[in-house]
Amino acid sequence: MQPPNVVDHSSDRIRIAVDAMGGDFAPANEVQGAGNALKRTNNRFDVVLVGDRTAIEKELASLDAAGLSISIVHAPTVVTMHDSPVAALKQKPDSSLVVGMTLHKERKVDAFVSTSNTGAVTAASTLLLGRIPGVSRPTIGTLFPSDTGYALIADAGAVTDSKPHFLFEFGVMGSIFSEYILGKKNPRVGLLNVGEEESKGDERTKEAYKLFIQRADAVNFIGNIEGRDILKGKADVVVCDGFLGNVLLKFGESVPSFLKAKFKAYADRGIYQKLLMALLRNPLRKIFKDFDYQEYGGVPLLGVNGVTIIGHGRSTPKAIANMILRAEEMVQKKINTHIENTLRELQ
Amino acid sequence: MQPPNVVDHSSDRIRIAVDAMGGDFAPANEVQGAGNALKRTNNRFDVVLVGDRTAIEKELASLDAAGLSISIVHAPTVVTMHDSPVAALKQKPDSSLVVGMTLHKERKVDAFVSTSNTGAVTAASTLLLGRIPGVSRPTIGTLFPSDTGYALIADAGAVTDSKPHFLFEFGVMGSIFSEYILGKKNPRVGLLNVGEEESKGDERTKEAYKLFIQRADAVNFIGNIEGRDILKGKADVVVCDGFLGNVLLKFGESVPSFLKAKFKAYADRGIYQKLLMALLRNPLRKIFKDFDYQEYGGVPLLGVNGVTIIGHGRSTPKAIANMILRAEEMVQKKINTHIENTLRELQ
Repeated sequence: MQPPNVVDHSSDRIRIAVDAMGGDFAPANEVQGAGNALKRTNNRFDVVLVGDRTAIEKELASLDAAGLSISIVHAPTVVTMHDSPVAALKQKPDSSLVVGMTLHKERKVDAFVSTSNTGAVTAASTLLLGRIPGVSRPTIGTLFPSDTGYALIADAGAVTDSKPHFLFEFGVMGSIFSEYILGKKNPRVGLLNVGEEESKGDERTKEAYKLFIQRADAVNFIGNIEGRDILKGKADVVVCDGFLGNVLLKFGESVPSFLKAKFKAYADRGIYQKLLMALLRNPLRKIFKDFDYQEYGGVPLLGVNGVTIIGHGRSTPKAIANMILRAEEMVQKKINTHIENTLRELQ
Repeated sequence: MQPPNVVDHSSDRIRIAVDAMGGDFAPANEVQGAGNALKRTNNRFDVVLVGDRTAIEKELASLDAAGLSISIVHAPTVVTMHDSPVAALKQKPDSSLVVGMTLHKERKVDAFVSTSNTGAVTAASTLLLGRIPGVSRPTIGTLFPSDTGYALIADAGAVTDSKPHFLFEFGVMGSIFSEYILGKKNPRVGLLNVGEEESKGDERTKEAYKLFIQRADAVNFIGNIEGRDILKGKADVVVCDGFLGNVLLKFGESVPSFLKAKFKAYADRGIYQKLLMALLRNPLRKIFKDFDYQEYGGVPLLGVNGVTIIGHGRSTPKAIANMILRAEEMVQKKINTHIENTLRELQ
């Protein structure tokens, strides 16, 4: 039986739409990821795969998909990395991104997961879903490794030219995500700056500092932190403008390949060095993996009136399964209600 | 014979003043560094040690300093890391920093080298020496390791809230330093941004991009680069606002200790792992050293009407010797004349 091209949302079950065409290995990894997520949870929720029906069905056939709560909504075109984010929404209304996000807008699904063009997913979410009342700008929160686990960086690239109160809101949203999804108790929120003193920084950051102090009940604000404090795990939530966050994120992601080249040059010096490096291959891989944010199951776009999880184009089926499970958790734990209530109380 | 407390600058020899009291191990490391620099160059230039005469003489006595072209100028107080940069200049006019910088202002010395409070050295340089004509803000240029050698980041923390034309000037100054001091031919100047396209970035960076394009003869502008391109060595000079540069610099410096902790945790897993890590100690140390900017002999403050080299408080004698030699090179190669001429031609 062919799955219907409409989504039945009459039940109480959570429904997650997955952009089946977004990633570099679409739809194979998306379909496998969806299958894995449902198998791991015994079909605890429904997945709606959005994209080219024929291609998706072909992948489903190669999967042992019988009994999985998967349906398909057909969307014939794809937004690529080369599309201009906002223009793509108009030019490709029948893309998996726009069709999937529209399902979410119409509340036919509870969340949307995509490994497509980050800018386009952010634009589609903001324009179609709108913002949670009280939120000035949605923020991308990305996980960085640290000595004590992980730190959430907000904003990691959704917003440049932030106003000071955007930074304050990033702190509030990041704190809620950190508490409810990452399980941190009373998350420590640090403002990324060039020094610890209140007087340090650019105008934006100095003003944001004042807002955090004035509204001390909003989050557990630990003050300014410096670039060296991120990996040390000094804060659970690191607040900054998205320009800085994006540069930092991409810099961090490039550290492993820089080090790998160094280790390779060392191995090339001789047979002894080569042997030593061969013995180290596995521990090094594990250590470097910490810098790769796709391992954490995608990043949330916090502040939109819905649940959007964005992943790397090269996401593995495992990473996509993690993204889907995270989306489910965000729906279940009503993250947006917490954000709305917290920001309302502060007004 | 006690060295005189005045500086004789009647000869053509280059004279470098060294803040002998600035670092964490002052004056020991400063005095040893000065001695090393002069021994390595057969007294090619003169060093003036500025600071507590008794303490400096004690260190000189423990050094084989006979025949070295070192003189002392007494300064009884010290600017510390806890002093507010600008206030310190007024409150401590007899500090090694202010006395030494004043010698430079009066052209009794040709350069000043300090491992004191970076903010205070920057403030003293800017206020006492003034700026090169055409320079809006002096910039700290710091070296980052890369796959192809080193990249100079400007600005690394001297200027926040940069105007777009500051960024353009950072590019010009960085390019000249990269060419004359670091020996790069036609240095590639990249503008640090969140994407490669011209339309990307915050307002400041988009405007700066236009300036680089409009004045295409000024530097070899290769366009926008991203955070991941720095370690890849895509640019010889990476231009950004000092807020971003400072956070990035401190983040980069923290990478080795983060990785060391990971390697240590691995070693603690058993005797085999401990042995493997012991064998790796030296290569790891060498690889991590690349992230430590003091190894490069301090950082220049480009754009002041003089030559200022700033080093880490914990600089070793070797690092201080390198700073002194770099200062000599900057004087000899007339870096400031090149900056002034280039910026004049652009007006």
